[in-house]
Amino acid sequence: MAKTKYVYYFGDGKAEGDAKMKEVLGGKGANLAEMTNLGIPVPPGFTLSTDVCAAFYENKRRYPDGLESEVAEHLARLEKSMGKKLGDPVDPLLVSVRSGASVSMPGMMDTILNLGLNDKAVEAIAKNTGNARFAWDSYRRFIQMYGDVVLLVPHDDFEHALATLKKARKVELDTGLSDDDLKKLVETYKAIVKKHTKKDFPQNPKEQLWGAMGAVFGSWMNERAIKYRELYNYKNLKGTAVNIQSMVFGNFGDDSGTGVCFSRDPSTGKNEFYGEYLMNAQGEDVVAGIRTPEKIATLSKRNAAVYKELVAIKDRLEKHFRDMQDMEFTVQQGKLFILQTRNGKRTGAAAVKMAVDMVAEKLITREEAIQRVAPEQIDQMLHPAIDPKAAKAAKVLAKGLNASPGAACGQVVFSAADAETWSKSGKKVLLVRKDTSPEDIGGMVVSEGILTATGGMTSHAAVVARGMGTPCVSGANALSITGKLATISGVKFKEGDWMTIDGSTGAIYQGQLALQEAKIGKELETFLSWCDEIREASVRGGIKGFGVRTNADTPADAKRAFVFGAQGIGLCRTEHMFFDKEKLIHFRAMIVADNEKQRKEALKKILPLQKKDFLGIFKAMEGKPVTIRLLDPPLHEFVPHTKNETEELAKHLGVKAKDLMPKIDRLHESNPMLGHRGCRLAVTYPEIYDTQVEAIMQAAIECAKKKIPVSPEIMIPLISDPKELAVLRERTQKIVNEYLEKAGSAVKVLIGTMIEVPRAAILAAEVAKSADFFSYGTNDLTQMTYAFSRDDAGSFLPTYLEQGILPNNPTETIDEDGVGFLMKHASQEGRKTKADLKLGICGEQGGDPATIDFCYRIGLNYVSCSPFRVPIARLAGAKAVIRNSKK
Amino acid sequence: MAKTKYVYYFGDGKAEGDAKMKEVLGGKGANLAEMTNLGIPVPPGFTLSTDVCAAFYENKRRYPDGLESEVAEHLARLEKSMGKKLGDPVDPLLVSVRSGASVSMPGMMDTILNLGLNDKAVEAIAKNTGNARFAWDSYRRFIQMYGDVVLLVPHDDFEHALATLKKARKVELDTGLSDDDLKKLVETYKAIVKKHTKKDFPQNPKEQLWGAMGAVFGSWMNERAIKYRELYNYKNLKGTAVNIQSMVFGNFGDDSGTGVCFSRDPSTGKNEFYGEYLMNAQGEDVVAGIRTPEKIATLSKRNAAVYKELVAIKDRLEKHFRDMQDMEFTVQQGKLFILQTRNGKRTGAAAVKMAVDMVAEKLITREEAIQRVAPEQIDQMLHPAIDPKAAKAAKVLAKGLNASPGAACGQVVFSAADAETWSKSGKKVLLVRKDTSPEDIGGMVVSEGILTATGGMTSHAAVVARGMGTPCVSGANALSITGKLATISGVKFKEGDWMTIDGSTGAIYQGQLALQEAKIGKELETFLSWCDEIREASVRGGIKGFGVRTNADTPADAKRAFVFGAQGIGLCRTEHMFFDKEKLIHFRAMIVADNEKQRKEALKKILPLQKKDFLGIFKAMEGKPVTIRLLDPPLHEFVPHTKNETEELAKHLGVKAKDLMPKIDRLHESNPMLGHRGCRLAVTYPEIYDTQVEAIMQAAIECAKKKIPVSPEIMIPLISDPKELAVLRERTQKIVNEYLEKAGSAVKVLIGTMIEVPRAAILAAEVAKSADFFSYGTNDLTQMTYAFSRDDAGSFLPTYLEQGILPNNPTETIDEDGVGFLMKHASQEGRKTKADLKLGICGEQGGDPATIDFCYRIGLNYVSCSPFRVPIARLAGAKAVIRNSKK
Repeated sequence: MAKTKYVYYFGDGKAEGDAKMKEVLGGKGANLAEMTNLGIPVPPGFTLSTDVCAAFYENKRRYPDGLESEVAEHLARLEKSMGKKLGDPVDPLLVSVRSGASVSMPGMMDTILNLGLNDKAVEAIAKNTGNARFAWDSYRRFIQMYGDVVLLVPHDDFEHALATLKKARKVELDTGLSDDDLKKLVETYKAIVKKHTKKDFPQNPKEQLWGAMGAVFGSWMNERAIKYRELYNYKNLKGTAVNIQSMVFGNFGDDSGTGVCFSRDPSTGKNEFYGEYLMNAQGEDVVAGIRTPEKIATLSKRNAAVYKELVAIKDRLEKHFRDMQDMEFTVQQGKLFILQTRNGKRTGAAAVKMAVDMVAEKLITREEAIQRVAPEQIDQMLHPAIDPKAAKAAKVLAKGLNASPGAACGQVVFSAADAETWSKSGKKVLLVRKDTSPEDIGGMVVSEGILTATGGMTSHAAVVARGMGTPCVSGANALSITGKLATISGVKFKEGDWMTIDGSTGAIYQGQLALQEAKIGKELETFLSWCDEIREASVRGGIKGFGVRTNADTPADAKRAFVFGAQGIGLCRTEHMFFDKEKLIHFRAMIVADNEKQRKEALKKILPLQKKDFLGIFKAMEGKPVTIRLLDPPLHEFVPHTKNETEELAKHLGVKAKDLMPKIDRLHESNPMLGHRGCRLAVTYPEIYDTQVEAIMQAAIECAKKKIPVSPEIMIPLISDPKELAVLRERTQKIVNEYLEKAGSAVKVLIGTMIEVPRAAILAAEVAKSADFFSYGTNDLTQMTYAFSRDDAGSFLPTYLEQGILPNNPTETIDEDGVGFLMKHASQEGRKTKADLKLGICGEQGGDPATIDFCYRIGLNYVSCSPFRVPIARLAGAKAVIRNSKK
Repeated sequence: MAKTKYVYYFGDGKAEGDAKMKEVLGGKGANLAEMTNLGIPVPPGFTLSTDVCAAFYENKRRYPDGLESEVAEHLARLEKSMGKKLGDPVDPLLVSVRSGASVSMPGMMDTILNLGLNDKAVEAIAKNTGNARFAWDSYRRFIQMYGDVVLLVPHDDFEHALATLKKARKVELDTGLSDDDLKKLVETYKAIVKKHTKKDFPQNPKEQLWGAMGAVFGSWMNERAIKYRELYNYKNLKGTAVNIQSMVFGNFGDDSGTGVCFSRDPSTGKNEFYGEYLMNAQGEDVVAGIRTPEKIATLSKRNAAVYKELVAIKDRLEKHFRDMQDMEFTVQQGKLFILQTRNGKRTGAAAVKMAVDMVAEKLITREEAIQRVAPEQIDQMLHPAIDPKAAKAAKVLAKGLNASPGAACGQVVFSAADAETWSKSGKKVLLVRKDTSPEDIGGMVVSEGILTATGGMTSHAAVVARGMGTPCVSGANALSITGKLATISGVKFKEGDWMTIDGSTGAIYQGQLALQEAKIGKELETFLSWCDEIREASVRGGIKGFGVRTNADTPADAKRAFVFGAQGIGLCRTEHMFFDKEKLIHFRAMIVADNEKQRKEALKKILPLQKKDFLGIFKAMEGKPVTIRLLDPPLHEFVPHTKNETEELAKHLGVKAKDLMPKIDRLHESNPMLGHRGCRLAVTYPEIYDTQVEAIMQAAIECAKKKIPVSPEIMIPLISDPKELAVLRERTQKIVNEYLEKAGSAVKVLIGTMIEVPRAAILAAEVAKSADFFSYGTNDLTQMTYAFSRDDAGSFLPTYLEQGILPNNPTETIDEDGVGFLMKHASQEGRKTKADLKLGICGEQGGDPATIDFCYRIGLNYVSCSPFRVPIARLAGAKAVIRNSKK
C-alpha cells in the first residue's frame, strides 16, 4: 500500500493540489492550491490534509506516523521559498495556521495568526521592518490568540488588560496605542499566560506550530462546530484540513489593510462588486465586527492599482469557478495578496437572481441554475415584509445595515440563552446584541430576527442570519446596550418589549408592526417556470409530469396557492367547512341524531351549504384537479364543548340540554385517532358520505353547465381493508353516475383513497382494484407506523431528537426506512394492479425537499403541500428530477 | 367435455359412489353408498349430487339440463329393485327425500318422509299391509311435512288440529288415535292445505317428488342454514346433495321402531354402545324430542336378534371408518335397516377419551388422535363445575339428562330472542325451553346454559349444546313452562330469576351457585403429553420445539398456568404489580415528581416490593423462562382518579392537593395508546426501567443463591426504532452485568423486545442487532396496523363483522394478510441478522388455534396465552406441526 501523503505544498506559481481536492485539502486549501496554479498572488504555504484529522481522531488524538518529518520537509521548502526561517533571530518567518474543512463552517473552528513570534523574533521584525509598533502589535495579537485558543487562557483577561491600558492612555482605538504601550501590553499578556498556565509563554516556534495545529484539529470537535454540522446536516466528513501559510500583514501601517469581497452582491444578487475592508488591520478585525469597515468601492480612491488588480482577479476567479466568489484579501505595503476564495453564500433572492443572470450570461445551464438554488432559499424569499401602510405610519427609530432580508417582529432578549428559554415557552423573540459570536448559534436559530450594534455585512451575525434566512440588521450604531436595557435614538427597550426590524432596508421600529406575506417576483417566476418545465417532462407510472399541488380547504387558500403555481389541490379537507358557525349547528344536530331519519334531515340542511364551498374551490382552481377528502375526524371533535353551546344545540333541536348530555358523552373516545372516524363513519352512517358526494356532484355539474372546467377527485380516507373501499367506492360511484346521467354530463370524476393506515399500504395491490388514485396521508401513516400521536409526542419526541435516537422529526421529513418502506411497497403493489395508478402525497411532509426527492424516487405523480410551500416544492421537485436522472 | 353425472344409485349390495365422494354425494349419500357396498342393510335409493345444488343456484334456481331424464332413469331402477312403482294404485313405492351436505348440519335443512302417498296409494298401503292405522298415520305425517316444508303452510295449524283431535278423543299420545281418527285428521289436514294454498293437496307423486327436491335444495339457503355455516365457519361448499330412498317404517306397529345410536358414548367417550329408540315411531319423533325415548340396551330384551345385528353392524362400521359412528336405524316388522352412519359428534371429554382409547386399541395413531380432537373441545373440558361445597349445601330441585357437560349459572329467559336481547345488555342468561328448534340457534349461542323439559340425549338442544360446548340439561320432566313462568318441583322461576344447572350430572338448582374451574384429568394429560412431544420435536430457526407459554402477572397465575403445562411465561406485565395499593402510592409519587431526585426516591421504595413480586414468579416457574416486560402503559393510567385519592397522595407527599392538580392534568393525553408510554418512558426517565431491572436482578440472584433455577428474559416494549433499542439495551445490559459480576453469578439473562409497532416490524433486521428475542405484541400491532383501538372499536367493528367487510375480529384471530405480513417480514428480516433469534407471540391471539397455526408457519418458537388457554394451545400447536409437516 502506498504511503498516505499528508502534506501538500502551494507557492511560487505551482501547487501539489487543486480545486477538485476539497475532500482532502478542505475548501480553503484546495482553492489556495487552485489560485496558486492560476498565478494569483497567494502567500505560499502548505496544507495538512483532512486525512490527518481523521487519523488524529481514530487514534486517540495522536498524529499518524511520518507526519512530523513530512511537515518538517514542507516547512523547509516554505522557508527556502520565503528566504526566512521560523524562529530565526535575524529574519524570522511568521505563519498563519487556519482550519478548512471540505464544507464552509465560518468562525466555527480556530485560527492562529503571526505564529513564529517570540521575544527575539519581535525585535528582529521591528528592526527589519523599521516598524516597532507593527512588530509589537503583531506579537500581542499572537499571544492573545495563542493564549486563548491553544493555552485556554480566558479571552476576557486579555481584553480587560487592553481596555485598561486604552483607558489609562485615554485612546478610543487600538491604533491609538504607542509601540511602548504595546510592548508593555505584551509583558502584561505574558504575565496573564503565566498566571493561568503556570508556565512561560512558549518561545520555541516549532512548539508553537505543533500547539497551534493541535488546537485547530481539536476545534473540529468543539461544541459549536458539532452543533453547526448538525444544524446544516453535514455528515460523514473526514475532518478539517490545516493550512500553514506565510503571513502577510494588513496591520503593517496605513498603506496596508485587509478585506472581504464578493464578485456579486450576496444580498440582492446584482452583478456589482461588493465588499468591505479595513486599513491597518488584520483579518479577524473585519469578521469580528469590532470596527465598522469601509465599502470596497472606496478602495479605488485609496489605491487605484490595487483596486484594479482586485477587480481583475475577482472577474477571473468568477469565470474560473463559474460562480459568485467570496474572497479574503490583504494589502501589505501596497501589494495585494489573496488569502482565500470560495463560492459565496447568498440570500435566497440573490441566489435566484444570480442563477437567472448567469444563465443569461451563458455562464451556466438552466439545470445548473436549478441546482445552485436551495429550496430553503426560496423559503427565505417568501419571508414576510412590513405591511407598507404600517411602515408608512410608523417611525423609523434608526437604520443599520440590511444584513439579511425579511421583516421580523418579536420581544427583545439580550442573550442567546434567554432567546432559547423564551422561545421554548412559545414566545417570539428578537435577539438584540452588541455583536454575535459562534457561541450564540443556538439563540440565533430560534430568534425571529437579529439586531446588532456593531459589525458589517460580513460580520458573524450577518453571515449566519443570511444562511438561516433569519432577518438581520447589523452595525446599528444608534443602538447602545447596558445589561438588559437597549436604547435606540432615546427609546428604551427592556427585556420583553416588542420591536420590529426590516432586514431588507435596515430599519428599526418600536412595537409590533403588521407584516405581510411575500410575493413572487419576475426573476423567481422565470426560475420556477424552468423548474416546472423540468418536472413536466418526467414520466411516472405512464403519467406525465411530477406535479405540485396544494392542501387547501377554502377558496381563499386555493386562490393563493394557484398564484404560487399549484397545479391542483391534493387535499381539500371537508371537515373544516363544518366548523363554520352556520353549518356547525346542523352538523351537531346530525351527530346527536337518534336515527337515520334525523341524521338525514340534518344533512339535508348541510348539503346546499357544502355545495357552495365546493363551487368556490372549483372556480378558484380553473379546472385543475381538486382532491376532496370526505369527512375524516371522529365525530366527537364537533361536539359542543361548553354549556352555552350545549344549550344552543338543545334549543335548536327542541330538547332539554340534560337529555343531550348522555349522547354527547357516548361520543367520547379513549383514543380518537384510532376511533370511529374516516370511512368508518360511512360504513356505520352511509348517509354522511352520500350527502358530501351529492354536494360535490351538484357543484361540479353547476360549473360544467356554466362552462367552468372542473376535475373533482373524491378521496375516501382511513381505509384499512380492500373490501371496505370496494363497498364505499361502489356506493360513491353509484351517486356520481346518477348525477352525471341525469345531467347528461361528461365531467370526469375520479374516486380514490388515502393510504394512511399501515394495513392499507400492505394490502395496496387489492386496495388498488377499487381506487383511481392513492394519496399518501403521511401524517397519519407516520403516526400509526411509529405508534405516536403528534398531539402527545411533545413529552418525548424532543428527547429523541436531542439524544439523536431519531435523526429527524418524522412528521417534518419522511422516515424513508419505516414509513417510506410502506409507501414504496404500496406504490409497487398498487401499480402491479393498475400500471397507471395515480400516486400523490398530501401529508405535511409533502412540502419538505428531502421528502419530495423520496416521493420522486418511488414514482409518485405529485406532491401536495401548504400554499406557502408550493414554490419551494416546485424547485425541490425539479431538483429531484435532475438529481435522480443523473444517477 | 364429458357430461356431468348428477345422479348416483345405491342398492342391492352395490353403489355407484363410496365414502370418499363426500364432496359430490354429501356425507349422508357417500356413507349410504359405502354401507351398501359393505353389504349393510340399507334401503335402496339414489343421490342427486351437490353439483345439482351448485348448478341450481348458479342458474337462478333452475335445474341443469338432463337432470330430469337422469332422475327418471334412476327412479325406474329403484322401482324395478323394489318391485313397486311410485304412484302405483296397487303397490305404490314410498320414498324419503333428505338433504345431506359434505359437512354435517343437523336439523338445518329439510326432510320429507312417506312421499308417494295420495288418496289412492293410502288405500293400497292399508290393504297390502293389512294395517290401516299405519297407512293413515303415514299419510297424515306426509301431508303435515310436505305442507310445512314444500307448501309453506303454518306448522302450528297442523299441530293445533292434531291436539284438538287428541283432546276430543281424550288420548295423551298419537298412538292413542284410531285409524278412523287418523282418516278424519287427513281430511282436516287437506282442508288446511287448501285454505292456505287455494289448491288441493298434490296427488301426483312425480309432482310431489320434484316439489320435495326443490324444497330441500331451497333449504340450503334458508336463514338458519346460512347462520349455521357462518357459526362453524364452513366456506366454499358446493351445496347439499339430495337423497331419495325407499321408505322403511318404524311406525308400522309395535314390532317396528326407529332410533339413533353411537358406537361409543358421545358424552363421556366410554367404549359402550350408546343410543335410544322409540317403538312405533318415525325418525323425526326421536330427534324432535316429543316423546322421551328408551335406552338402546333395552332393545336387547325387545328383540335380541335385531339388537345383536345392530351391535355387529356398529362394530363393523366403527372399524371400517376408524372412528366412533353415529347411526340412524329403523326396524320394520322386526327387520333392521340402517338409514345413516357418520362420524359422531362428541363432547371434548369424549373426544379425548376416544382418541386415547383408540390409540391403545391400535385403531389409530397418535398423530391421528391429535387430529381428531378440536382445540375448542379442550376448551369445553375446561368449563367450570359447581364448587363441591356449594353443591353439597344446595338442594337439587330435579334431575334431567346430562346432555352437555359443564356447570352454568344465569338468569332465566324463555325464548331465544330474549336470550339475545338480555345477553346484549351484558347479562348472563340461562335459556329454559320445552324444547329447542333450529330457529333458536342465535339464542343458544349466547346462553350460559340450556335447560329443556323434553328431548333426549340426541335432541336438538343436546346435540347443538354439545357442539358449542354449552352446558345443557335436557328432558327434565319435572319442568313445566307456562308463558314466562317455569315451575320445577314447586319452585317458581320468573324471567330474570337465577338458576344453576350441571350439564355433567343433569342437576338443576335454584339461585347462583359458586362455580369452580376445571382440572386436567389423566386422559387429557396423556393426550396433551403426546401433543407436547410432537411440538418438542420440531425445530424453528435452529431452536428446538414449538413451545406454549402463558401470560401471567402474578405468582398465582403463574402457578395455575404451570399446572396447565405452560413451558414458561411469555408475558409478565410489570405494571399490574403497581396497582397493588401498597405500591400505588409510591408509584403515584414517582409520576408527579418534579425531578429525577424525587423520582429516584419514590422508585427506591418500589424496588424491594417489585423484587418480591419477581421472586414469587421465578419460584412458581421452577427455572422455565420468564419474559418480563418493563413498564408499558402511559403514566396517566396511574394518576389519582378521585378527590380522595388526590388528597391521599398530597398528604403522602406533604403538599396541597390543589398544587398537585396541574401536574396530574399535564399527564393527560389525547391518544394515550399513541402517547408517552413503553420504552419512551425509559428514554425520558431512565431511572424507571433501571429500578425494574435492578428488582429483576436482585430476585434472580437471590433465587440463584438458594439454588432455585431462574431464566429471566427482560423485554423492552413499544420499540419503534433500532437505535432506541440499542440505547436501552446497553443501559439494561450494564445493570445486568454489574449485578452478575458482583454476585459472581452465571444466571443467563436475555434482553429482547416486543414487536408491536409497525415500524419495529419493518426495521426488524436492524432491531434484531440489539435483541436476543422478539415477542410479537399482536394486540398493539393489530391496533396500529388497522389504526383502531379496541377501546373505541365497539362503535364500528360489529358493523364491519356483520357486513362481512372483515371475516374475523382481528383482535381474536390474527389478520394474516396485514398484521401477519408484518410478522412474517419481521421474522425473516430478524433471522437474517440472527439465525437463532428466538421468536414468540404474546398478544391475545396467541391462544387462538388459527393464529397458532400461522405462528408455526412463520417460524415462531413459542406462543403465549392466558393460563386457561394453555391446554388448548398445547393441542393447537401440535396440530399445526402435523398439518404443516404434511404439506
